[in-house]
Amino acid sequence: MNFHTRKWVKPEDLNPNGTLFGGSLLKWIDEEAAIYVITQLGNKRVVTKLISEINFVSSAREGDVIELGITATEFGRTSITLRCEVRNKITRESILTINRMVFVNLSAEGKPTPHGKTQITYMDAPTRFAA
Amino acid sequence: MNFHTRKWVKPEDLNPNGTLFGGSLLKWIDEEAAIYVITQLGNKRVVTKLISEINFVSSAREGDVIELGITATEFGRTSITLRCEVRNKITRESILTINRMVFVNLSAEGKPTPHGKTQITYMDAPTRFAA
Amino acid sequence: MNFHTRKWVKPEDLNPNGTLFGGSLLKWIDEEAAIYVITQLGNKRVVTKLISEINFVSSAREGDVIELGITATEFGRTSITLRCEVRNKITRESILTINRMVFVNLSAEGKPTPHGKTQITYMDAPTRFAA
Amino acid sequence: MNFHTRKWVKPEDLNPNGTLFGGSLLKWIDEEAAIYVITQLGNKRVVTKLISEINFVSSAREGDVIELGITATEFGRTSITLRCEVRNKITRESILTINRMVFVNLSAEGKPTPHGKTQITYMDAPTRFAA
Amino acid sequence: MNFHTRKWVKPEDLNPNGTLFGGSLLKWIDEEAAIYVITQLGNKRVVTKLISEINFVSSAREGDVIELGITATEFGRTSITLRCEVRNKITRESILTINRMVFVNLSAEGKPTPHGKTQITYMDAPTRFAA
Amino acid sequence: MNFHTRKWVKPEDLNPNGTLFGGSLLKWIDEEAAIYVITQLGNKRVVTKLISEINFVSSAREGDVIELGITATEFGRTSITLRCEVRNKITRESILTINRMVFVNLSAEGKPTPHGKTQITYMDAPTRFAA
Repeated sequence: MNFHTRKWVKPEDLNPNGTLFGGSLLKWIDEEAAIYVITQLGNKRVVTKLISEINFVSSAREGDVIELGITATEFGRTSITLRCEVRNKITRESILTINRMVFVNLSAEGKPTPHGKTQITYMDAPTRFAA
Repeated sequence: MNFHTRKWVKPEDLNPNGTLFGGSLLKWIDEEAAIYVITQLGNKRVVTKLISEINFVSSAREGDVIELGITATEFGRTSITLRCEVRNKITRESILTINRMVFVNLSAEGKPTPHGKTQITYMDAPTRFAA
Repeated sequence: MNFHTRKWVKPEDLNPNGTLFGGSLLKWIDEEAAIYVITQLGNKRVVTKLISEINFVSSAREGDVIELGITATEFGRTSITLRCEVRNKITRESILTINRMVFVNLSAEGKPTPHGKTQITYMDAPTRFAA
Repeated sequence: MNFHTRKWVKPEDLNPNGTLFGGSLLKWIDEEAAIYVITQLGNKRVVTKLISEINFVSSAREGDVIELGITATEFGRTSITLRCEVRNKITRESILTINRMVFVNLSAEGKPTPHGKTQITYMDAPTRFAA
Repeated sequence: MNFHTRKWVKPEDLNPNGTLFGGSLLKWIDEEAAIYVITQLGNKRVVTKLISEINFVSSAREGDVIELGITATEFGRTSITLRCEVRNKITRESILTINRMVFVNLSAEGKPTPHGKTQITYMDAPTRFAA
Repeated sequence: MNFHTRKWVKPEDLNPNGTLFGGSLLKWIDEEAAIYVITQLGNKRVVTKLISEINFVSSAREGDVIELGITATEFGRTSITLRCEVRNKITRESILTINRMVFVNLSAEGKPTPHGKTQITYMDAPTRFAA
């Protein structure tokens, strides 16, 4: 799994206990997953259909940097299934894992429509030098 | 189940498809659940531990009013389990259901600690007149 | 008066004194009142016309849970008048009261238009069990 | 009255009717008034105590530029009273007027405390050229 | 240069170091500059084209009041160039200066189009009394 | 240069022209750059010191996916210099480039302090499979 998007935990993301608000984290995950799906399917009209059990293993604190990893695990006819992991970028400690996030590919009229993909086809740009 | 908190779907809550962004909805649910737990346990130091499968049954559009319902279904020693439903306030159409949201009661040091509750004890104020 | 929507006072809602920012509270009230009006009048096109004197009786702190209560007090031809109270959900201490919030019912063209209501008609779903 | 702070009405500020959300406007006014008071009293610990009747005369649309004017009208022992007007910057059309916003000067312990001012003393920097 | 818009540095504007997040400040500057351009050119369709070097001279802390000053320095055929300074409103200490912000005037189709201005023509309302 | 963080352009990120608000983009860049610096220097206390000329080459529209690339170009004694590019993730079209963003490494007291690095040392986790 590749980890792409990162977040810096700022005061606006905290719950009153001073740790990362779970709801903010869920919002970030849903956006990152949608981006992954749009990129793979080449279609902007996609919606979240199902999110499997979410287990909050550890939390994050103000100033922590976290990163979100997503990968496709299954291609249906009109759907795509992803796996997601969020971890602390520095310590690599896992924050949560979601085994299945299912998105549906929509037509311009908002109806489920076949996406024609059967495997991961979008490749990220080759890395020219490490960083 | 009682439905308390309502939201008016505004432009800032939309995804680029013009429907309610799933991530915003998840953020609202997590806050409402935390409020329910704080109220029942009488402790502000609570954290989300687990959210069971989330099935997005229908969506909401700009201008829709939705309402969030939460009820406790199980009291553990340091945890509490909730059930959640979100629906359109006008049409009563279900938007999503979550069977189990588990929260943990924390001590001032941030460790799981017994909450001493075994059933729903907090009663909302009696209704004086319908509205 | 029934209290429905609740808010958890998070860091993003605070003023630099560490108490709930009055402006955030006013934003929440205006949304809750609009929701009440939309539900009663069955029309999404409504606007705030007047808010009577607002007396900030007490404040709220980070981590507090507050609840907003609204009830209709008067039905005009194109308008509806509400009363609003905000209080701490746990202590029931009043935070502020607004005696009159006047909303106007608009046509699709944005002009004031009769709403045809003379009393509270929308009833919240019957409570199946307390919580 | 001088008009200082301006806002550009962006999609995030709209209600579902496509006009400026009243709650967002109230949040802007409360911040601008607090800034005025902090500047006049030379103390950062101030709170909103009372806002007199608010009459929404006209609205604003996406892309409009509005400006907020505040001036002090009365100096109490621990309080200060302001008058506020919001208008469209281009057309000068009034959006709303608030005759009295009362703020209280607090001590480090959060108690009302005399501010020692009896008139407007803070002068904005002299204008070097018009713009 | 005249300073108009002010901001009160609230918890939502802070980075995890407890000082004003640079990104929030840049967002405020871009909005203020756009407002200045819209007002001068009498056209709402304007876009940021270039921002010259930004030197962060000092920072701001929670509760500080800052003010943003903008003035036009050059009128091109389809563009306008501004100078910007941000400073602490109380201490007058400079926070940053930007020598050139270039905006382009667009037609309804989104193409650069002549604005017909050669100098600052919009005058702010005369000051009736100091405040 | 590697591109990591992605953003989905949502209604809340738009200016009134319906394109990505430049100020929102600048906020995203500043956060991403801070994350890069924190990761490289292994210190959370870092501040933006200088941003060189920003040339807005093209814009983004609602629903577009953009990605942010950062790389270190120079290590000073207490500073680090980055280069940044933002582009459309699907079309690879460049949105803007910033040649130099300078950050300073701070001590716990907030003073510039040597970071002891002379080259890029943090390597992202090896890619296990393309996605």
